[in-house]
Amino acid sequence: MLYPNNIKKDKKSFINYGNRGMNLENLINETNEYYLNNDIALIFKKPTPIGIAKVSYNSFGKSIEKAYFKEQSTLDYNGLYKGKYIEFDAKETLNKTSFPLSNIHPHQLKHIRNVINHKGICFLIIKMNNLYYLLLGESLIYFIDHNERKSIPYDFIKTNAFEIIEKYNPSLDYIKIIDNLLKEEK
Amino acid sequence: MLYPNNIKKDKKSFINYGNRGMNLENLINETNEYYLNNDIALIFKKPTPIGIAKVSYNSFGKSIEKAYFKEQSTLDYNGLYKGKYIEFDAKETLNKTSFPLSNIHPHQLKHIRNVINHKGICFLIIKMNNLYYLLLGESLIYFIDHNERKSIPYDFIKTNAFEIIEKYNPSLDYIKIIDNLLKEEK
Repeated sequence: MLYPNNIKKDKKSFINYGNRGMNLENLINETNEYYLNNDIALIFKKPTPIGIAKVSYNSFGKSIEKAYFKEQSTLDYNGLYKGKYIEFDAKETLNKTSFPLSNIHPHQLKHIRNVINHKGICFLIIKMNNLYYLLLGESLIYFIDHNERKSIPYDFIKTNAFEIIEKYNPSLDYIKIIDNLLKEEK
Repeated sequence: MLYPNNIKKDKKSFINYGNRGMNLENLINETNEYYLNNDIALIFKKPTPIGIAKVSYNSFGKSIEKAYFKEQSTLDYNGLYKGKYIEFDAKETLNKTSFPLSNIHPHQLKHIRNVINHKGICFLIIKMNNLYYLLLGESLIYFIDHNERKSIPYDFIKTNAFEIIEKYNPSLDYIKIIDNLLKEEK
């Protein structure tokens, strides 16, 4: 498609920000469903926390008339694999050179430290440059505790995260990486 | 207080059904907060799942104009203790002689079987006859698979569940029971 000369080409204007993260979330949900149906792992997305301001009662029961979204103070997904506690979040950035730490809320960061302290398995699945990475909570915390930077350079992610190759069924087989890590631990 | 003779005394009418379970939930929330603040375990109540029917946008951001409550298909609380996955639900009955299985939805039952299969720690905290019991998922499933009954006799609970003695800080120290079970396992 050619652009008339008087329209400034701005790549950003063609990005649907409303859907940002949508695709990654769908891939993860599909993967979790595959894990559930094939008895591999039990991982669920937590419901979005909301604050309820007004309810009404009718013949169908209780319904919500007014509510607002609350921030998730933990990570979006949790569950279990071989008895072990797993918790993670899906993060997507359009930034090609670094992952902005503003994507992770301070209370989420505190929670990641907590999960690690309690010997849970905690990580981020990051979509960046159209690739998928599993960055362990330990690597994330290491970076934060040893850097003043407000974003993680892509090089750090490429070196320290595990790439998850997108494929068919399951789309993003992140448990395979966790399984390998657990085997190494033994 | 004395009742006029023409009013039939009905004990049930003095029970606030709307608050049923409230007290137990508060005790558990308090206990979980104690565990969190004292670095003992990380257990959270899952947000209530809702279906959003209508949202609006204003200067404060997105808010919900119409929504409805969905049924939790898993159990209400989950988290981790010493790296192990924990999931449980709080159930309360006013029935003195048996615990009606109608308190547990079929999809919750299926989920309990799943958690056990994946080596998670799964249980119910039951308030009955003003006492608190921790009934392991394994005992619950055993009962269901070996009985045609629609309720669990109180005797079965007294024999097979662990009593949690209510005390001050933490109110219901259920992790202590889990800890003893984990020690026995070794």
